[in-house]
Amino acid sequence: MSSPIDYSSSRGRASGERGAGAPAGHRAAHSGGAHCGSALPARASGPPYLGGPAHSTRVPTPSWPSGILVSKMLLLQRVAVSGLRVSRFDRLIVPKLGPHVCFASDPSHLQNPKPHFSNGSTPSGYWAAAGTLLGIGAVLAYENHREKAAENSLPVYTKAEVSRHRSLETRVWVTLGREIFDVTDFVAIHPGGPSKLLLAAGGPLEPFWALYAAHNQPHVRELLAEYKIGELSPDEEKSSDLVSSDPYASDPPRHPALQINSQKPFNAEPPLELLGESYITPNPLFFTRNHLPVPTLDPATYHLQVEGPPGGKTLSLSLDDLRRFPKHQVTVTLQCAGNRRSEMAQVKPVKGLNWGAGAISTAQWGGARLRDVLIQAGHSPSGPEAHVCFEGLDCDPTGTAYGASIPLARAMDPEGDVLLAYEMNGQPLPPDHGFPVRVVVPGVVGARHVKWLGKVSISTEESPSHWQRRDYKGFCPSVDWDKVDFDSAPSIQELPVQSVITEPRKGQTIEPGEVTVKGYAWSGGGRAIIRVDVSLDGGLTWQEAKLEGEAQAPRRAWAWQLWQITAPVPTELKELNIICKAVDDGYNVQPDTMAPIWNLRGVLSTAWHRVRVQVAS
Amino acid sequence: MSSPIDYSSSRGRASGERGAGAPAGHRAAHSGGAHCGSALPARASGPPYLGGPAHSTRVPTPSWPSGILVSKMLLLQRVAVSGLRVSRFDRLIVPKLGPHVCFASDPSHLQNPKPHFSNGSTPSGYWAAAGTLLGIGAVLAYENHREKAAENSLPVYTKAEVSRHRSLETRVWVTLGREIFDVTDFVAIHPGGPSKLLLAAGGPLEPFWALYAAHNQPHVRELLAEYKIGELSPDEEKSSDLVSSDPYASDPPRHPALQINSQKPFNAEPPLELLGESYITPNPLFFTRNHLPVPTLDPATYHLQVEGPPGGKTLSLSLDDLRRFPKHQVTVTLQCAGNRRSEMAQVKPVKGLNWGAGAISTAQWGGARLRDVLIQAGHSPSGPEAHVCFEGLDCDPTGTAYGASIPLARAMDPEGDVLLAYEMNGQPLPPDHGFPVRVVVPGVVGARHVKWLGKVSISTEESPSHWQRRDYKGFCPSVDWDKVDFDSAPSIQELPVQSVITEPRKGQTIEPGEVTVKGYAWSGGGRAIIRVDVSLDGGLTWQEAKLEGEAQAPRRAWAWQLWQITAPVPTELKELNIICKAVDDGYNVQPDTMAPIWNLRGVLSTAWHRVRVQVAS
Repeated sequence: MSSPIDYSSSRGRASGERGAGAPAGHRAAHSGGAHCGSALPARASGPPYLGGPAHSTRVPTPSWPSGILVSKMLLLQRVAVSGLRVSRFDRLIVPKLGPHVCFASDPSHLQNPKPHFSNGSTPSGYWAAAGTLLGIGAVLAYENHREKAAENSLPVYTKAEVSRHRSLETRVWVTLGREIFDVTDFVAIHPGGPSKLLLAAGGPLEPFWALYAAHNQPHVRELLAEYKIGELSPDEEKSSDLVSSDPYASDPPRHPALQINSQKPFNAEPPLELLGESYITPNPLFFTRNHLPVPTLDPATYHLQVEGPPGGKTLSLSLDDLRRFPKHQVTVTLQCAGNRRSEMAQVKPVKGLNWGAGAISTAQWGGARLRDVLIQAGHSPSGPEAHVCFEGLDCDPTGTAYGASIPLARAMDPEGDVLLAYEMNGQPLPPDHGFPVRVVVPGVVGARHVKWLGKVSISTEESPSHWQRRDYKGFCPSVDWDKVDFDSAPSIQELPVQSVITEPRKGQTIEPGEVTVKGYAWSGGGRAIIRVDVSLDGGLTWQEAKLEGEAQAPRRAWAWQLWQITAPVPTELKELNIICKAVDDGYNVQPDTMAPIWNLRGVLSTAWHRVRVQVAS
Repeated sequence: MSSPIDYSSSRGRASGERGAGAPAGHRAAHSGGAHCGSALPARASGPPYLGGPAHSTRVPTPSWPSGILVSKMLLLQRVAVSGLRVSRFDRLIVPKLGPHVCFASDPSHLQNPKPHFSNGSTPSGYWAAAGTLLGIGAVLAYENHREKAAENSLPVYTKAEVSRHRSLETRVWVTLGREIFDVTDFVAIHPGGPSKLLLAAGGPLEPFWALYAAHNQPHVRELLAEYKIGELSPDEEKSSDLVSSDPYASDPPRHPALQINSQKPFNAEPPLELLGESYITPNPLFFTRNHLPVPTLDPATYHLQVEGPPGGKTLSLSLDDLRRFPKHQVTVTLQCAGNRRSEMAQVKPVKGLNWGAGAISTAQWGGARLRDVLIQAGHSPSGPEAHVCFEGLDCDPTGTAYGASIPLARAMDPEGDVLLAYEMNGQPLPPDHGFPVRVVVPGVVGARHVKWLGKVSISTEESPSHWQRRDYKGFCPSVDWDKVDFDSAPSIQELPVQSVITEPRKGQTIEPGEVTVKGYAWSGGGRAIIRVDVSLDGGLTWQEAKLEGEAQAPRRAWAWQLWQITAPVPTELKELNIICKAVDDGYNVQPDTMAPIWNLRGVLSTAWHRVRVQVAS
């Protein structure tokens, strides 16, 4: 996919990189003090950029500069990196820290796809906290170096060379514009935690700064300058292995934080540590599930065909026509039927993309109600049982388009909130999410939310599409490919109750004392999450987590709840087997284990989510 | 409760009872042959009276008459008792048996509360099968004794004495009218299986014959006459310990097959072997959950108060007024929130009646739509969020009535089918089920189906009733009575998916070869059952059962599905750990185990149902 790499050049420079990035003398002076005061809540909530709490992460020890300042650096690390430790150390070391915040407020010169929130504000104060922590980290680490600009003659690297520096072992390089930085020694003191900075390792910072604009401040840029080690080759072009005959040649660029399960078609999920931080998932991080190449559609000529009843007319609606219907906005969580398939595959192999637990995301969608459009096309709001069939404009080489259907009653239900959406978090739909128009069917499996919508029709039968009739169905665990009868099972519409732990991560080592467990929970059909139970001991005992979602109308709980709980780590345990399970308002629960719900397509993977972590001794 | 028993009289007769009941010579001639032909399907479905297949029951061996006819009796036993064996033996022994049925057709002189079925016919041919099997058993066993009427001078017993004869060890006595019969030697050859005849042991046959009218035929009466051993004391009166000050003094008589969990208030469930045999539960067997004494209401003066909107009128509707609304009929399964509580209590004690798995039943209800009545009272069909509050006419000594509420949107939903019911299976409501009017809320926990309905009102808040706000809620397993906050959990409305094995029964010994497993499955909220998985090996492997319920409208699957599966008994197993689990059309599933859903009130007990049985070697 990328051009050949000149290994010798980067290898040859390995011993010099550390010094080039941040000479000991420079870094030793970082702890000069906060000039703006500080704002560290006793139990700091993490920022969702390259940030967020990472108190339970064991940070590999970098090689610190020697001298008297090392102890101050360690103090800084403790304060900035560990939310948990802060709650104990701040009483000893920084008892006067209060909610006095200082950070630059004008990030507008960087692209900022800040989502539009239904309540008009940013969610949960997360982004403010991000800026706050970043301010502290940057200021403490950097203050005395404001004037420095070490622009010497530095080496030139290719992007491929940069991309090989993605870990503490290989050094952590990032780029901003044409500049290359070795931020290895900043990873441990990154205010949001090492793991989130590492998401950007080996590539550009811009996609992350675009999401979390608090980074784009003068003092952060100056801090970064300290770590500069080189520049990108000026003659390097955007690498591409796409050829004109490739049907995926027009696929859009994607955010580098996405974890890719399949490149063609593109299927990817956000990392859980970002997903779990934000009630609204930023558009670039929203999980992407494409079945076919992304079609390139011209909004000026786009028309949606909506068939009327037998003998009636067919509407051909331009984007402007759709915008003339009353605009309806609703916050909806979409989940792929295959979310968490990788866990089910551990029981026995299944066919399907190897999704982790991130094939789920939440956005505020805006558009016309499907109900209004169907009535306009001449359909009765209360007709006999039927199906609304959707056809996408994405096609396979034979011209077969993606398709799916939902029951007409759901489309016509005034409380069903089914949309023909043209906005996602206040922006036009991104290409990967159906530009210019997609269906949004709240409470229903993602597969029915047809993207790049071309046609809507009513039928007495379900969509004849492969994806409606020969996929996305559940079966008895004894049914494998040799004897499956797809007609014997109903197509998945509403999904069962689901929950996942987003923090801590599997295999992490946490500190003794207290642990904070975070996650998401959601159920289909508009059923609200009423409770999430968390166990630290493999299910022997349970505690109730705190739900943090927005208030939702009865029967219309279309969006997930984020949840968290901070609990004492049982002193006798060296390993925690953390489990979460959710309950919805029909008092539906998740099954204990995966094997009894195994099915050949690996869908409906909703058993208790389990994360094992070690307790540091 | 009953008068003192003269033990000496019955003990003194013990040695003579067997002979008095059925002298060896009489019984030895039972196998004279079928005079009407026979109708044994290759895989006979069991009758739901004192009948039904019991092929998996090990019948204690009675003392058989000696002689050449014993082998024929054993053959009869095999044919009549074991549906499974029939499927194999009929090829060897009775290959010509066809669907030629003979049994008397006029049971009308016995009370027959035969339910009215929605499709106008009896369900699943069960009752016809009952008559068929009974005809065979009776005819084969009895033919040559039609003329006999051994009316000698027989002893007199009290009801209390009869009631002590309820097992093969103590002999099995039953009464019909004033006559007493020792049917011990007929138990093993009872066509429907021994266990169902034993339900009537120690008491009158009439309540069972009233349900399953095929028994009331001349040849059955004559067969019975052979076993007559005595008569009931003519001066015995109906025993009663009720005194005038007892608030339960007016409670109605109940069917003796009901298994009583609480006498005052009356709470009882049908035995699973009867419950699982019939899609429609006969009224006398319908589980009864009373919170207070049964009120005695005069239908001529009964009026239902229906409050209008603020400033509006209050309707006072007589029974005739209610009947003038369009009559709506719907088949609905009701389930107590505490069904299967006894299993949850094994994890850790809970508060509540010790229900088995029979606190669930199905009836066809007829009445006025609550929606129509509310609109008549002046309420808008699409108002703001509110609750419909119901008040019963059953009161505790302080005058507090039973009460509950449901969301107004459910009541107003044209597809919600919420009724003010005055009919149950085509009959006026029985006193225990709310005569003359109860609420029926399809898909919702039984506690909201308020009986003996006195008042309906709309409120912005839920019913203030104890049973709405301080009961019937689920909590985290860690919440016990010392720290429960009832306000923290929503009141149960829709119930989660449930399934139960009704056959075989726990502890039974089954024959090697094949086993038939039967049961019921249901889910709340109108969600249809789409699959029931059955395991014979404790959950290692699963097979899909066959569903046998009636077709239901989408989103309105208000009634359960009965299911069954016949599968080979794994030859290596000496014990089967049979499990069932159901899936509804939201692909909701049951949890594996009970401990993680334990709650202090023992509600929502929906973990996999498990039945261990032994395999005969």
